[in-house]
Amino acid sequence: MGWLADEDGLGKRAANFVPLTPLSHLNRAARVFPNRLALAYGDYRLTYTEYHAQVSRLASGLAARGIEPGDVVATLLPNIPAQAEAHFGVPACGAVLNTINTRLETDTVAYIFDHGEARLVLVDTQFIDLAEAAKAQMQGDGPEIIEVPDEAAGYPATGRHTTYAELLAQGRPDAPWIMPGDEWESLSLNYTSGTTGRPKGVVYHHRGAYLMTMGTVISWRMVLHPVFLTIVPLFHCNGWNHTWMMPVLGGTVVCCRDITAKAIYDAIADEGVTHFGGAPIVLNAIVNAAEGDRRAFDHKVEVFTAGAPPAAATLAAIETLGFNVTQVYGLTETYGHVTECIWDGVSWDGLDHSEKSAIKARQGVPFPMMEDITVMDEGMKNIPMDGKTQGEIVIRGNAVMKGYFKNPEATEESFAGGYFHSGDIAVQHPDGYIQISDRAKDIIISGGENVSSVEVEGALMHHPAVSLCAVVAKPDETWGEVPCAFVELKEGAEVTEADLITFVRSRLAGFKTPKAVVFQELPKTSTGKIQKFELRAALKQA
Amino acid sequence: MGWLADEDGLGKRAANFVPLTPLSHLNRAARVFPNRLALAYGDYRLTYTEYHAQVSRLASGLAARGIEPGDVVATLLPNIPAQAEAHFGVPACGAVLNTINTRLETDTVAYIFDHGEARLVLVDTQFIDLAEAAKAQMQGDGPEIIEVPDEAAGYPATGRHTTYAELLAQGRPDAPWIMPGDEWESLSLNYTSGTTGRPKGVVYHHRGAYLMTMGTVISWRMVLHPVFLTIVPLFHCNGWNHTWMMPVLGGTVVCCRDITAKAIYDAIADEGVTHFGGAPIVLNAIVNAAEGDRRAFDHKVEVFTAGAPPAAATLAAIETLGFNVTQVYGLTETYGHVTECIWDGVSWDGLDHSEKSAIKARQGVPFPMMEDITVMDEGMKNIPMDGKTQGEIVIRGNAVMKGYFKNPEATEESFAGGYFHSGDIAVQHPDGYIQISDRAKDIIISGGENVSSVEVEGALMHHPAVSLCAVVAKPDETWGEVPCAFVELKEGAEVTEADLITFVRSRLAGFKTPKAVVFQELPKTSTGKIQKFELRAALKQA
Ligand SMILES: Nc1ncnc2c1ncn2[C@@H]1O[C@H](COP(=O)(O)OP(=O)(O)OP(=O)(O)O)[C@@H](O)[C@H]1O
Ligand SMILES: Nc1ncnc2c1ncn2[C@@H]1O[C@H](COP(=O)(O)OP(=O)(O)OP(=O)(O)O)[C@@H](O)[C@H]1O
Ligand SMILES: [Mg+2]
Ligand SMILES: [Mg+2]
Repeated sequence: MGWLADEDGLGKRAANFVPLTPLSHLNRAARVFPNRLALAYGDYRLTYTEYHAQVSRLASGLAARGIEPGDVVATLLPNIPAQAEAHFGVPACGAVLNTINTRLETDTVAYIFDHGEARLVLVDTQFIDLAEAAKAQMQGDGPEIIEVPDEAAGYPATGRHTTYAELLAQGRPDAPWIMPGDEWESLSLNYTSGTTGRPKGVVYHHRGAYLMTMGTVISWRMVLHPVFLTIVPLFHCNGWNHTWMMPVLGGTVVCCRDITAKAIYDAIADEGVTHFGGAPIVLNAIVNAAEGDRRAFDHKVEVFTAGAPPAAATLAAIETLGFNVTQVYGLTETYGHVTECIWDGVSWDGLDHSEKSAIKARQGVPFPMMEDITVMDEGMKNIPMDGKTQGEIVIRGNAVMKGYFKNPEATEESFAGGYFHSGDIAVQHPDGYIQISDRAKDIIISGGENVSSVEVEGALMHHPAVSLCAVVAKPDETWGEVPCAFVELKEGAEVTEADLITFVRSRLAGFKTPKAVVFQELPKTSTGKIQKFELRAALKQA
Repeated sequence: MGWLADEDGLGKRAANFVPLTPLSHLNRAARVFPNRLALAYGDYRLTYTEYHAQVSRLASGLAARGIEPGDVVATLLPNIPAQAEAHFGVPACGAVLNTINTRLETDTVAYIFDHGEARLVLVDTQFIDLAEAAKAQMQGDGPEIIEVPDEAAGYPATGRHTTYAELLAQGRPDAPWIMPGDEWESLSLNYTSGTTGRPKGVVYHHRGAYLMTMGTVISWRMVLHPVFLTIVPLFHCNGWNHTWMMPVLGGTVVCCRDITAKAIYDAIADEGVTHFGGAPIVLNAIVNAAEGDRRAFDHKVEVFTAGAPPAAATLAAIETLGFNVTQVYGLTETYGHVTECIWDGVSWDGLDHSEKSAIKARQGVPFPMMEDITVMDEGMKNIPMDGKTQGEIVIRGNAVMKGYFKNPEATEESFAGGYFHSGDIAVQHPDGYIQISDRAKDIIISGGENVSSVEVEGALMHHPAVSLCAVVAKPDETWGEVPCAFVELKEGAEVTEADLITFVRSRLAGFKTPKAVVFQELPKTSTGKIQKFELRAALKQA
C-alpha cells in the first residue's frame, strides 16, 4: 500500500484532518455568504448569518432541554423552515435526526417513535393529533412534543405543548456547535417508504451526507447561488440531502408546504427557482396543471426526478414547458439518488423526440461520489450489457447507509458479497446505462415468462385517457400469474376495459397484456409511490 | 458524540466505505464518459477509454519494472501527456508521485533525488542532461531514468535510456489498479518552490486530493465538460490538483509544453479552452502580448491566479480582454489554492473599475473543502477584522499536507497550536476577506515601522514603464532596513531611478518609498515567483 518508507510525523492532526460533515457547509456559508438569502417561506426570510444563528439557538435549546449527543430527535413536519433548521440544529447538538413521514397512519408513527426511541419530536400543528394519538398508543411515555405552529398557513398553536419559539428562546444565537469527532457518527435515521412492507430504519453518517452533497453539485450542474424549491419531502431521505448541500453553494432554499402545480409555478415565477427534485407524479401534476395555475417564466428549470420510473409520455410533455428533466435513481438506503441519466449531447442531440424520451427513461450511470453501481446475477457476476439480460442493481460507495437500526440480520443480508443489494431488477445497455425493469417483488411471472410491470405501465400511459396506473400480478390457475391493471383516468376522460386491453395488445406481446383492468384511485405512499402490495392484497382477497 | 445507543451491525464495510482517492474519478469517467476527449496535445488525443487504458499500461509497466507500493516514482517533465498520465498511473500501482521542477539546477535535483529516494524517474528528453548530471553527483545510484521523447516538439530520443513507450509496452491496458486501502496513504511528494530557501518535501494523501478536486469544482463554477489548459506546471502542487479533477467533470485537459502568450491564445481559439490557472506573471504576458500573438474568441475564459499577489493594474487590464480572473491563494503545503476572492455581485457590481480591482487583489475566503482559514496573532488569537491589524494566515482543513517528508521537527513547528502556519502576513477586512501584506520573511522593518514589500511593488507597478519589480530590505545604518526596488522595464521603455522614487513618493508615505532602484532582470523560480532571498543576498554582499 502507498505508505512511504518513512512516515515519521505524518499522522492525522487537528490541522489536517477534519471529520466530513454537512455542518461545515453552513459554518462556512455564514462566513462567506453572510448576507445572502438562505431560507425563504412567505414572509420568513433568513440570511446565512440569521440561519446560522437560528440553528445555534435550536441546538443549544435542545441541549437545554436535556438532549445529549447520540439521542434521537424526531420531526413530524412538512417542508417548512423548522424542518430545514432541524437538519442542521439537531446534529449541531450531537443528536441524530429522525424525520418522520407526516402522512403515515397512527400505528406506524407509534411504531417509529418506539423503534427509533426519539426523546423529543418537533410537530407541526397540523399533525399534533397524529403525534398525540401515536404517543397514546405507546407503552412508555414516547417523545416530548414541541409544537411548531404555522399561523400564516392556518395552523395556530393549540396551547397544549411547548412551542418551537419557546424552545429556541432557551437557546443562544452564538452557542458553539458540537461537531462530530468521527465522520462515521450517526447523522440521521430515516425510515423507508414502506412501499414493500414495514418501514426499516436506515442510518446515515456525516461522511456520507457530506460526500452526497459534493457529488450532487456536479451531477446537477450547479454553480453558485441556485434557488432550490423543496418538493421532495425533507422526511424522505432528508430530501435527497439537498438542504445540506445548499450552503456550500450560497444558494436559497424556498420552502413549499403543500405541493401543488400552482405552488410550483408560483415559486418559479416569484422566487426564481432554478432547481427542484420530485417524483414522477409531480411532473404529471405540472403537465396536467389547469391553465389558471400556470405562470410564465423565461429561464430553464433543472429537475431531478426519481422514486419511480417516469413515463416516457410525461417526460416528453414536460420538456416543452421550460423544464429540463434528468432522471435519477436511488433508495433511502443510498441517501437518495446515486445514478443519473447523464445526457450525452454528442451522441443524442440529433435523435427525434420519442428516441430522446426513451433514453431519458433510463436510470443511468453512477453519481460522482459512488464507486460502483452495476447489475449482477445471483452469483454476483456482472450480467452481459445487452439491454436484455436482467439482474439486480448492486451498489458500492460512500453514500450507502451504515445499516438498518436495530436490525443486524437485515443489514447483513442487504450487504452480502460486498455490495448493497437494491432489490431492483434491471438491464444494462451496451453503453453501460442501467434501466430498471421492475422491483424484484413486483415482477410478474406469467407462464414462466418474466413480465415487467413497469413496461406494461409505460404502454398504458401512452393512452390519452390514462392519468396514472399500476400493473400487478393476479393469481391465475392456468398461468400462475397474469398482469392486472389498476387505472386512474384523467378528469372527464372515458375509456372501457376492453379498449385499454386492445390498446396495450397493439404495443406489447400477448403474455404482457393485462387480463383485467380496474378503474379506481390508487393507494400511494406520501412520496407519491403506488403501494402495489396493497393492490396485490386486494386481488388475493377477491 | 453522535453514536446511537445501539450501533450493532452499523460499522464500515466494503459496500459503504470506500477510501477517497482521485483514482476513483478516472475509473468512473472511463465508464460514464468513455468517448469524450480526455487529453489533447497536438495530434495526441485520448478519449477517457484510452486515457484509462494508458494509465493501466503505465501502472502495470512500472510494476513490471519492480516498482512496489510505497516506492517513490519521480518525473522531470513539462506539461505533456506523460505528466498527466503519471498523475494517475503512478498511484494506480500504489507508488508515490514526486514531480520535480524542470527548471531547478543540478544540485537541487540531486538533492531531491537523494532526499525523496525515487526509484525511477520519467524524464523528458529536453531534461535528460539535467537528470544524468544530477545522478552523477549522487553517492548512490539514484533513480532509473525512463526517457520521454517529444519528437513533434524537437526532442527525439537520445537512445541512451529505456523509453516511455518501452515502459508502457511492458504493461497491459486492462491491468487492475492498486486502489488505496486507507485514504491517508501517501499520494505524492512535492518539494516547495524554494522561494525562501531549501525546498521542503510536502506529502499529500489521497483523501486531501479527492476533497481538493470536489471543492475546486464549486469555487471555479465548473459544470460538466470544461476544457482546461495546463499553464501551472504539474510539478507545482500537482498543478493545483486540476488534472485529478477533470475526469469527475468529463472535461478535457489540453497540454501546453511552453507557456507563451501565443500558445495560450491559440489554445483558447483552437481548442475552446474555458479554464486555466496561472501565476500573475502569466496574466502579465497575456496583457502585454504582441498584436500578432493574439487571437479572437467569443467565450469568457475563467482564470485562477495565485502564487504571488497580482498587481491591481494587471487585473484591470486583463478583464477587458475576455478573461474573468479570480484570485486564489494557497501553498504547496495546502495542495494549491485554499482561499478565493469570491465575487459578491450584489455588493460590488456597481463599483467603479479601480475599486473592483482593489477588491480582486484580496486573497479572500476559504474554499468549500476547508474548515477554517483565518488570521491570528502570535498568541493564536484572531486579530480584529479592521483591514489594518496584521497577523499570520493559519489554516485548518482536509486539504492540508500530512507533513514534511523526513522532517518531523519542521512538521511539528508548522502545525503548532492546531493550525498550519503559512508564514504569510495579512490583514482581515470587516467582511472577513483576507489580504496578504507580505511574507513574514519579506517584511521590511524601517525605523521600527513595518513596510509591506507587496504594497510598494503595487505602487511601482502603476508606472507605465515598469514591467516587473521586487522590493526587498536593504541594511541601513540609520533605519535598520530601508526598501530597495529591483525593476524590469517594459520593452523600449525608459525611466530613471529618481523618476521612480518620486513616483512612489507621490503615492506612499516617505518611510515606504524605496531609497534605491536597481534595473536588472529578476531571479525567478520556475513558477514565476521572484526569489527575493537572492536579491537580499546580493544587497548584503554589496
Ligand atoms: N428513477 C427510478 N426509477 C424507477 N424506480 C425508482 C427510481 N428511483 C427510485 N425507484 C424505486 O424506489 C425505491 C426506493 O424507494 P424508497 O427507499 O423510498 O422506499 P421503498 O423501497 O419504496 O420502500 P420500502 O423499502 O420500505 O419497501 C427503489 O428501490 C426503486 O424501486
Ligand atoms: N494569491 C496570492 N497572493 C500573494 N501571495 C501568494 C498568493 N498565492 C500564493 N502566494 C505566496 O506563495 C506561497 C506559496 O508558494 P509555494 O508553496 O509555491 O512555495 P514558496 O512558499 O514560494 O517556497 P518555499 O516554501 O520553498 O519558500 C505562499 O506562502 C504565499 O506567500
Ligand atoms: Mg426499498
Ligand atoms: Mg512556502
